[in-house]
Amino acid sequence: MQKYKASIKIMPLKELLDPQGKTVSKSMKNLEIDTVEDVRIGKYIEMYLSAISRVEAEKMVDRACKKLLANLIMENYEFELTEI
Amino acid sequence: MQKYKASIKIMPLKELLDPQGKTVSKSMKNLEIDTVEDVRIGKYIEMYLSAISRVEAEKMVDRACKKLLANLIMENYEFELTEI
Repeated sequence: MQKYKASIKIMPLKELLDPQGKTVSKSMKNLEIDTVEDVRIGKYIEMYLSAISRVEAEKMVDRACKKLLANLIMENYEFELTEI
Repeated sequence: MQKYKASIKIMPLKELLDPQGKTVSKSMKNLEIDTVEDVRIGKYIEMYLSAISRVEAEKMVDRACKKLLANLIMENYEFELTEI
């Protein structure tokens, strides 16, 4: 079994408002950072797993994203696998 | 003014328990993904900003992370800047 680290990014879909991001964006003004145009806030997940092959590991992470980690109605996900 | 995209990762410190991650890790078993060893859950933030130079942009993002986005008692952050 090979060990892998999956780096998963889950972001709100571009078509949707991201109220948390908008709020942060406005708060930047109070920090005198006033050239910020947009902020979008999502999740970053590191998952450590073992699998017999890279293909198998990709299947597992994909399944985990679809079934548990991302809400596909509101979010999309992407991930990278690195051997460790 | 050059436009930049900052990709910011904010993660719970390694020394701390990550209860959300632990819960997800356990839930994986129910999805028949049983070779997951650890899951850590953080935030991923995309920030679009303009600045006169890369150094200036780095300062702005660093300031935003320290003052607003990350809680340095419990989290650490890293970011990458790309010109857009």
